[in-house]
Amino acid sequence: MIVEIVSTGTELLLGEILDSNAQFLSTRLNELGFSVLYRTTVGDNHERMASVLKTALQRADIVITTGGLGPTQGDITKEVTAKIFDLPMVLDEASLEHINQFFAKRDICMPTSNKKQAEFALGAEIIPNNFGTAPGMSIKQADKMIINLPGPPAELQGIFEEQVVPYLFKNFGYQGIIYSKTLKMFGMGESSVANSLEKIISTQDNPTIAIYARNSDVLVRLTAKAQDEQHAQNLLEQTEQQVRACLGEFIYGVNAEELQAVVAQELLTKQQTISLAESCTGGLVTAMLTEIPGCSNFLKGSIVCYSNESKIRELQVEPISLQTHGAVSEQVAKQMAIGVRKLMQTDIGVGITGIAGPDGGSDLKPVGLVYVAIATENKVVCQRYIFTGSRNVVRHRVAKTALMNVFKIIKNKEF
Amino acid sequence: MIVEIVSTGTELLLGEILDSNAQFLSTRLNELGFSVLYRTTVGDNHERMASVLKTALQRADIVITTGGLGPTQGDITKEVTAKIFDLPMVLDEASLEHINQFFAKRDICMPTSNKKQAEFALGAEIIPNNFGTAPGMSIKQADKMIINLPGPPAELQGIFEEQVVPYLFKNFGYQGIIYSKTLKMFGMGESSVANSLEKIISTQDNPTIAIYARNSDVLVRLTAKAQDEQHAQNLLEQTEQQVRACLGEFIYGVNAEELQAVVAQELLTKQQTISLAESCTGGLVTAMLTEIPGCSNFLKGSIVCYSNESKIRELQVEPISLQTHGAVSEQVAKQMAIGVRKLMQTDIGVGITGIAGPDGGSDLKPVGLVYVAIATENKVVCQRYIFTGSRNVVRHRVAKTALMNVFKIIKNKEF
Repeated sequence: MIVEIVSTGTELLLGEILDSNAQFLSTRLNELGFSVLYRTTVGDNHERMASVLKTALQRADIVITTGGLGPTQGDITKEVTAKIFDLPMVLDEASLEHINQFFAKRDICMPTSNKKQAEFALGAEIIPNNFGTAPGMSIKQADKMIINLPGPPAELQGIFEEQVVPYLFKNFGYQGIIYSKTLKMFGMGESSVANSLEKIISTQDNPTIAIYARNSDVLVRLTAKAQDEQHAQNLLEQTEQQVRACLGEFIYGVNAEELQAVVAQELLTKQQTISLAESCTGGLVTAMLTEIPGCSNFLKGSIVCYSNESKIRELQVEPISLQTHGAVSEQVAKQMAIGVRKLMQTDIGVGITGIAGPDGGSDLKPVGLVYVAIATENKVVCQRYIFTGSRNVVRHRVAKTALMNVFKIIKNKEF
Repeated sequence: MIVEIVSTGTELLLGEILDSNAQFLSTRLNELGFSVLYRTTVGDNHERMASVLKTALQRADIVITTGGLGPTQGDITKEVTAKIFDLPMVLDEASLEHINQFFAKRDICMPTSNKKQAEFALGAEIIPNNFGTAPGMSIKQADKMIINLPGPPAELQGIFEEQVVPYLFKNFGYQGIIYSKTLKMFGMGESSVANSLEKIISTQDNPTIAIYARNSDVLVRLTAKAQDEQHAQNLLEQTEQQVRACLGEFIYGVNAEELQAVVAQELLTKQQTISLAESCTGGLVTAMLTEIPGCSNFLKGSIVCYSNESKIRELQVEPISLQTHGAVSEQVAKQMAIGVRKLMQTDIGVGITGIAGPDGGSDLKPVGLVYVAIATENKVVCQRYIFTGSRNVVRHRVAKTALMNVFKIIKNKEF
């Protein structure tokens, strides 16, 4: 069953609000097994809305509109829908009573303009709205259906789950199961991931594999269609194993898992404590770790050392190292990691120093040069990176790189 | 000039991401005087995308697409656009070189798949992308134009402002003037702001005033229409003065100005240095301040003290205060502010302690209780807050509150 979502409202076309309804409906309809192939946005204009709805009816089985069910003159979605099917609008007394009661509960007299919300196309099914004053409406002719739903997100979501889901199943039957799983990766670019997975992608179409970049991560999304959950899960698992065999070292989590949460979990499981000395990241890594409730169980504290004096005073970095190698150097990063680990008495100490830009770079030490050192009881390792991008992009990549390095070290018990 | 925005990408139709690009383009195009009358979303499918683009060309003068310029097999927007105009795709050596350099800067060999990003329709205008690897493309035939732009929001916004705005004016001329200005506020809720401004809003329609909430801020957006810039600016200024007279103390900046940038500017202007002792915010305030290039001129360093030992050892908080009043108390917040100011030898010291949740609260000290202390040479002030919301919402509100308090103190020269 092909669905087109039509979002109505001039405020959308003016950019005044973000169309979260279209995303909500897309997610839920796909989960229910319907194929959303088009979405259209149109303003509160009779002619243009009618034309958009006619086009939608040609290419989809089901057209779901949002918005334009309110009491104002600009709310025209039901009228336009009725006109397309050549149906007159009639008042529904039961709906009028429901709207009256809605106002009565709030000790308000119903404004006359709200009467409009109780008018529907002759013969249409009325979809009750227990979340606001505007009921929805559905018209089916031949194999095509238009469903009008309200625009306020809380009303739309409420009416969808309570009324529309059973209504769709009643009219169109069960659509099978779609399950998906997202593997989250850091440390490899989108196109390199695509190249690595090319063979797996080209040899199968269930699950499908989609790759996209988000916030420096690369997400690999597996989507399986099957008649029941067990089959879907089996399909997903097989493909996940193939992907992991290929790129496992870059995968840190699945679905909504965040890198900092995964690192926190690993620290707790292995009962390791951590402290950080941050220069160019300026507290960002610590701030990410403290997003996790209960972080005081593994995070003892951090030093943001934005000056040489602070590096010497708090972290015991040797002045001679700063003079000889500079603040952005392997030697200083290592001493920062060792110093903060000792000061905070933790199992793991992290030292980060670099040039986030946009200024401060040189030929020898360009903007984006970063050292990330990790000290454990027995050793200290340091890696050198050159990142590109704006100051904030560089800082976020450095922070994630540091977390990923900590993750690998704990996971592989390299301490 | 009528514009249709076409967002491409199956991930949009699956509901995996919110289409913020469509909103961005709608806002900017309207500001520039273009009429956005339709928006359509279609997946990465040749036939359906071609059909959507043809429909768009019938009803709009300019069609702007986003997404599908990447290196993967699913990235087909340029090919489909070329096919509609019956044009073959050809390699552009200069673009290939640009992409090559993009990877070379990162010390990475360009994956072969990225070559695709340097292919364009024969005769198309190439729109350089200085924000990523995917250049845009524009084809004009008769009075109709299709412009292909990249999907990642940072790239889209960058290329739009830098390349597309002048390109549109060059091709379609000047569309009249719409100027807008956004006043950014922190510390007052959206509906309170709306109530306060009700009179101003109801007595004028040019400039229009729109109020919305974003990231704990409330934004008041003034939009003026006029025949030339001078008139528009005059209209904006009058209304801005009215709003400031009413709510000035909550306004920290205008348009894209971030609170941390405003605070940084104020610190630099007044030649004040700062250091922070962060407990419940875990480095977040420091991380926000270090977003600002050149922050080492005013930020000397910070201590993230997630344990009592760290508060005592680094910040000289008295053990008796911790015992008597607890770590989350006015006394400890003040000592943290004084302690870090002394340790880092700065003009201003900030101490933040609180319970971010979700656990750790009690009847006497509920989740969301936070103390923010600011120490200067002559005095130390501390304010008590109770915030509500998730752990991260609380942490962000605390961080912004701390910055806002620093801002007011420096601005009013309370030191």
